Amino acid sequence: MTQPKLYSYWRSSASYRVRIALALKGISYDYVAVNLAEGEQAAAAYQEQNPERLVPLFVDSDGTRLSQSLAIIEYLEATRLTPSILPREPARTAQARAFALAIAADIHPLQNLRVLKHIRHEYALDQQGVDHWARHWIEAGFAALETRAAARDTDFLFGDAPGLAECFLLPQAYNAKRFGLALARYPALAAVIEACNADPTFAAAHPANQPDAPQE
Amino acid sequence: MTQPKLYSYWRSSASYRVRIALALKGISYDYVAVNLAEGEQAAAAYQEQNPERLVPLFVDSDGTRLSQSLAIIEYLEATRLTPSILPREPARTAQARAFALAIAADIHPLQNLRVLKHIRHEYALDQQGVDHWARHWIEAGFAALETRAAARDTDFLFGDAPGLAECFLLPQAYNAKRFGLALARYPALAAVIEACNADPTFAAAHPANQPDAPQE
Repeated sequence: MTQPKLYSYWRSSASYRVRIALALKGISYDYVAVNLAEGEQAAAAYQEQNPERLVPLFVDSDGTRLSQSLAIIEYLEATRLTPSILPREPARTAQARAFALAIAADIHPLQNLRVLKHIRHEYALDQQGVDHWARHWIEAGFAALETRAAARDTDFLFGDAPGLAECFLLPQAYNAKRFGLALARYPALAAVIEACNADPTFAAAHPANQPDAPQE
Repeated sequence: MTQPKLYSYWRSSASYRVRIALALKGISYDYVAVNLAEGEQAAAAYQEQNPERLVPLFVDSDGTRLSQSLAIIEYLEATRLTPSILPREPARTAQARAFALAIAADIHPLQNLRVLKHIRHEYALDQQGVDHWARHWIEAGFAALETRAAARDTDFLFGDAPGLAECFLLPQAYNAKRFGLALARYPALAAVIEACNADPTFAAAHPANQPDAPQE
């Protein structure tokens, strides 16, 4: 059997989520870089594999080909049972998924690369205008997530080890920094982020440590 | 035991998704209207229940309180096993989830009410400008979904009955119409949408048939 493959871009938030899940589950994979800055996701060869022209794309050893970070991560959880990254009780699992979705559906879509490019061009924004737009949506979302994180009764968001919710939080925190948002305003989230960033598992998934990241 | 409650707004796409799932599973519930047009989601009493200040919010008979449409629907699937709305094989389930997420994370977030209000105000757009923005993202997304729908080998998207993917497709198709997009350009999607709209289960969940919909 060949290893699974992950089509990824070092700075893509959605790719970063899947890299964390793969690392938490200890799954080895081949990294295939897709350079979003140079538009490689729109090339015919890639589009044939993923009509959405987005990363990540996961290809399992048996050829199963999957897009959408959350769908990929749920598939990893269903096919590689241990270590589990979802709580056991359905209500708690739903809360972890809701946390992930508050990022995946309410925050991140408004400040990914294709949307920032579009508003910069359509509405003639400068970098400051673009950063202002991105921060607006991150702030709206993080305020609600901070309330949820502050109410937690476990070391991490939904358990005593990082899981699904952390797969989504860490990449969004990385983006927040890029747009100049101070995480200190969200102390409960910041504590979880710090604990994850101190963990070598998370370091392996970090954008700076990917083969296609620019060399220092 | 009291019935579950759904906090909903008749025209909210995410509420509509959960209403379809509840109807497909035959779950009775109390409908609690939250008037987004009048900003009721920002009222203190609602915000205390859902810090994200969005609908839907689902409160189960035992008091379990959940936000985020996909998380709610997955919870319904985990707690009410029949009829199932997910395929049996993990790879196919992942594909159904990816279809739902292509709508929930890539299309819908760019044209929900709060974002349209924001761009109208920040970038001084008229109605035409707003509709143009909304259609741009729906078209980008539907092109990819049409490819997936055209490749299906079942009557509905991922099986011979409607399921998770249809819970997301129908509300997005309803929105597409509002913004003047002709669905005839997507024949495979249009066939699935038409079959669902002919089904009384889907009619029960339709915006026009909700208690808070404007009277004709």
